[in-house]
Amino acid sequence: MSVLAPLRSLLGADVIQLPGEFDAAPRLHDQCTAAPPEARLLGLARPRSTEAVSQILKFCNANDIKVAPQGGMTGLVGGGVPIGPALALSLELMRAIEEVDPAAGAITAQAGATLEAVQVAADEAGMFFPLDIGGRGTAQIGGNASTNAGGNRVVRYGMMRALVLGMECVLADGAIVSSLNKMIKNNAGYDLKHLFIGSEGTLGVITRLVLRCMPKARSLCTALCAVKDYHGVLELLAAARSGLGATLSSFEMMEADFYRLAIKARGRPAPLAPTHGCYVLIETMGDDEGSDQARCAAVIGEAIDAGVVQDAVIAKSGAEVRELWAVRESTLDFPKPNIGFDISIPPGQMGDYTAHVKAMIEARWPGTLAVFFGHVADSNLHLAIKSNADPAWEQAVEALVYATIGEWKGSVSAEHGIGAHKKPFLQYSRTPEEVELMRTLKRALDPKGILNPGKVF
Amino acid sequence: MSVLAPLRSLLGADVIQLPGEFDAAPRLHDQCTAAPPEARLLGLARPRSTEAVSQILKFCNANDIKVAPQGGMTGLVGGGVPIGPALALSLELMRAIEEVDPAAGAITAQAGATLEAVQVAADEAGMFFPLDIGGRGTAQIGGNASTNAGGNRVVRYGMMRALVLGMECVLADGAIVSSLNKMIKNNAGYDLKHLFIGSEGTLGVITRLVLRCMPKARSLCTALCAVKDYHGVLELLAAARSGLGATLSSFEMMEADFYRLAIKARGRPAPLAPTHGCYVLIETMGDDEGSDQARCAAVIGEAIDAGVVQDAVIAKSGAEVRELWAVRESTLDFPKPNIGFDISIPPGQMGDYTAHVKAMIEARWPGTLAVFFGHVADSNLHLAIKSNADPAWEQAVEALVYATIGEWKGSVSAEHGIGAHKKPFLQYSRTPEEVELMRTLKRALDPKGILNPGKVF
Repeated sequence: MSVLAPLRSLLGADVIQLPGEFDAAPRLHDQCTAAPPEARLLGLARPRSTEAVSQILKFCNANDIKVAPQGGMTGLVGGGVPIGPALALSLELMRAIEEVDPAAGAITAQAGATLEAVQVAADEAGMFFPLDIGGRGTAQIGGNASTNAGGNRVVRYGMMRALVLGMECVLADGAIVSSLNKMIKNNAGYDLKHLFIGSEGTLGVITRLVLRCMPKARSLCTALCAVKDYHGVLELLAAARSGLGATLSSFEMMEADFYRLAIKARGRPAPLAPTHGCYVLIETMGDDEGSDQARCAAVIGEAIDAGVVQDAVIAKSGAEVRELWAVRESTLDFPKPNIGFDISIPPGQMGDYTAHVKAMIEARWPGTLAVFFGHVADSNLHLAIKSNADPAWEQAVEALVYATIGEWKGSVSAEHGIGAHKKPFLQYSRTPEEVELMRTLKRALDPKGILNPGKVF
Repeated sequence: MSVLAPLRSLLGADVIQLPGEFDAAPRLHDQCTAAPPEARLLGLARPRSTEAVSQILKFCNANDIKVAPQGGMTGLVGGGVPIGPALALSLELMRAIEEVDPAAGAITAQAGATLEAVQVAADEAGMFFPLDIGGRGTAQIGGNASTNAGGNRVVRYGMMRALVLGMECVLADGAIVSSLNKMIKNNAGYDLKHLFIGSEGTLGVITRLVLRCMPKARSLCTALCAVKDYHGVLELLAAARSGLGATLSSFEMMEADFYRLAIKARGRPAPLAPTHGCYVLIETMGDDEGSDQARCAAVIGEAIDAGVVQDAVIAKSGAEVRELWAVRESTLDFPKPNIGFDISIPPGQMGDYTAHVKAMIEARWPGTLAVFFGHVADSNLHLAIKSNADPAWEQAVEALVYATIGEWKGSVSAEHGIGAHKKPFLQYSRTPEEVELMRTLKRALDPKGILNPGKVF
């Protein structure tokens, strides 16, 4: 008899499903990380209420059953992928948008709501929920919080952490902690939500969120600029920060190789000649169509006059905006198989760092395609390296690249988290004392280690 | 012999001072809260390095000596005031601005640096550190972090939490945890700094901070608007949010009584007639002098046309800007003695809430002057009530006002923290489950309870 039988009796066979009753395959991998052979699912829990989540965790804690909390499985580091026998816990049936409060600029949603559903609810109420990532239609808002999701608009609106006002969550022992705060200023005791944001389901299961919405922007200006090199990228960033101020909402860098691959894969005319060193997609979200467009054009014009920008195009229609973003978002067109990296480097050192990494890879494996791109205003670089599909080679490449992070005081994970995949590399970004403090928190909140075991550290 | 003798031998008589060697009085009260009779200082520790802080805490932890971490003592809830025998720990000699990094938009400072020193360092490097409070010349940046300070620009730049990139702190057992991150995006493991921000020195002692600076604004527009009532305040807030977008940096409300008292106390001509129901000071920080001024004027003009704003004045010089702010900052001119409140209420309910509280006080103590003002865009209200200097009466007033917070789902502390003074009222904003989780964290990080005992919960 399944160890889950008493829980199934309590909550019903629709809430607690046993192996054979559900499709296990999509719950054993994400786009980049698969479960190890020793992983298996004891069952799938799909609760419909916070109380049910509480009963599930209480039962699992009492019976030493490991739990793998899963969101939309759009993370890329195996954060939701079990590494041993575990009960998968999905909040996909808890997806209600419970309240939309324009006066407070807040939306209360159950954790299983998709990011897109939250975006739509905000839009319909005349507000704007700024978090945006490629997986918006599948990613769950609870997963966005537990991984502190980033995306394309962090330079203006911050990461998910900045967009969470309140939270309800369930601890390992089943205790429900409700902090559904709607206020921007609240210093009444410890701000507990920050424990659960970014801890990847290892300290508790988020069940409800109060999300901070922003006023809708009235204008959008999207431009693509060509610059000579990283020095030019950073000069343009300084000019954009200073000249566009708080309206600057995206600053996305692409190296020449990335741009050329994207143009080739799309088979559409290039917005700018593919002969420059680096390309930057700039977007502003403002409040006055006329003056915002004029200011954006003026800042780019000054950068051209100063010799920083070599060529530029400003989108003149919605179609042209989509065209420019399609180039930036063409990562999926990158030759496969490939290894992806999501790292942070202090902005001032990005030029030296990228040159160092490329030289190192060229020296060891000549001719290997390695391309940087990403959200440089947020210190976030992505790196894609063409793979030869040899796991040992891929491991050697990862070991080499991640080891550089420690030397350059960067982060081995800018926005995707550590999950299972990056655990060996955490040491390059965090000291033994920091990891020990993480362990102290884990022991205090989940003494039996049932929540998402084997992740982060 | 003092229990501190071995520590004094280790660190020197200049670092560990004994009673009689230093002025204890200013370390036994802040502006609003005095130490109870049973409080006394075993000594004063003024370390010059993180290592010395570590040695002090290690010694105190081993010897069960309570520690009262103290910053500039500008908090108003007794957060730094000891409630029993304790060693005062001041980082006033650790006040170096260690690094200014314009490329990363970051300043690294020791925790004892004043807020003003950080503001000046940012300004001299062409950057802007947006946190600002009245006590800027005395408040220490470590205290700003440990209390998650707020102030006048939260609507645009967020509270202190949003301005901390990295942190070094010392745990109760002396362990030094260094997370001096400079990057905006860093999801490599738990974001530990959030444990120490806003926990008022009960979980660790902050020794160093990496602070996030912003680009300097190029334009400033300051206006004072008169509206009929709270409904008008909220209509103007919606118009300002929508029309001024991210440039809106202050939105400060004053009730008519506050305005009239301020004008009278200042003895200067009133910027607007004192006959309106509410007054709002609006400030924008933008990037283009001409268009920002024009937009601010247009938004206010539209609000006048719509009948929301009854009268308005826009400052035309630096002197006029200071004049408008002087009215708002005249709180110190309020008739003394008085009781001050720092609370949050969900914005949509502010009008009803303030009317409710005033009616309640009038019903119980007719003729009592009670005036609201504050940062309403951040959900933050301040309330000043003229006192008759009778402690029992003051306690009754506090009990009455704080009890309303629970009913209105507000916060008993918007920006000043809980400290010692607000402990009895925490229950109105936080559930027993939340407080239990706070206790769990306290036990995990400070099992012997040496750090700032008796505070928060």
